[in-house]
Amino acid sequence: MALEIEHKFLVKDCWQPQDSGEYMLQGYIADSQRGAGRLSVRVRIVGERAYLNLKSRISSVSRHEYEYLIPLDDARELLKNFAGPLVEKTRYKELHDGKCWEIDVFAGDNAGLIVAELELDSETASFERPDWLGAEVTADDRYLNTSLAVKPYKLWDK
Amino acid sequence: MALEIEHKFLVKDCWQPQDSGEYMLQGYIADSQRGAGRLSVRVRIVGERAYLNLKSRISSVSRHEYEYLIPLDDARELLKNFAGPLVEKTRYKELHDGKCWEIDVFAGDNAGLIVAELELDSETASFERPDWLGAEVTADDRYLNTSLAVKPYKLWDK
Repeated sequence: MALEIEHKFLVKDCWQPQDSGEYMLQGYIADSQRGAGRLSVRVRIVGERAYLNLKSRISSVSRHEYEYLIPLDDARELLKNFAGPLVEKTRYKELHDGKCWEIDVFAGDNAGLIVAELELDSETASFERPDWLGAEVTADDRYLNTSLAVKPYKLWDK
Repeated sequence: MALEIEHKFLVKDCWQPQDSGEYMLQGYIADSQRGAGRLSVRVRIVGERAYLNLKSRISSVSRHEYEYLIPLDDARELLKNFAGPLVEKTRYKELHDGKCWEIDVFAGDNAGLIVAELELDSETASFERPDWLGAEVTADDRYLNTSLAVKPYKLWDK
């Protein structure tokens, strides 16, 4: 188990990818409201690797997260048979001031959306803002990947 | 992925365990009605091993099943934080006429219930009935482990 403390931001137009990134295809196959909070069950394919991920929200910033490598064929079947709408994105990683930022460039029905995430050791840890960093959207549930699967960016009132 | 074809039966009083069996503690942490059918997400602890299991019902006899070994500490946390009521049982395995029967002796709120399961290669495969085999309950949803978690044997009208 890991406690995941994450901040999420919009990304300004000046940002440019520095490598080819990693393409990801993911979907949600189950969820629950029992116990300590909402638990979502995600299948993600990254290249030839596949993961089953269990994530629970504690607050908008903190989550419990469990991730397991699973066979690629299992992941394809699970996405095909049990997932709702899939979310596609390319993930880029960039170091700024010793911190690793993840920049997700969405595709498909979420094309046009670019989001940067930063994982921190505590909810109050400080960090340096890169030039391309836009407004924080950590508390805006529309930007959750679970939300983007159900109501993609192309359907938003912008 | 495996397609699981399973028949379930009651067990007569004359049955006696031939070894000490394996104690299992399990709970359901998420589910889904999306896609091809109901998908349940189960965490099971067997001794020092723990498993995450995804199971979907195709018919009362056939199921898709995926099972992954996970760290024991993860399993304990998942059961503690996200499971509904837990199901406890001891599983015994017995060979009869070349087929492996699993006999589950339930405990806790399901104490008194003993069920035998046989996995077959096809829905129509034949098999020899052991002397201790009772009525078939494959199609009776009350005997599903997901059902026994929610409405345990002690609450049944018997």
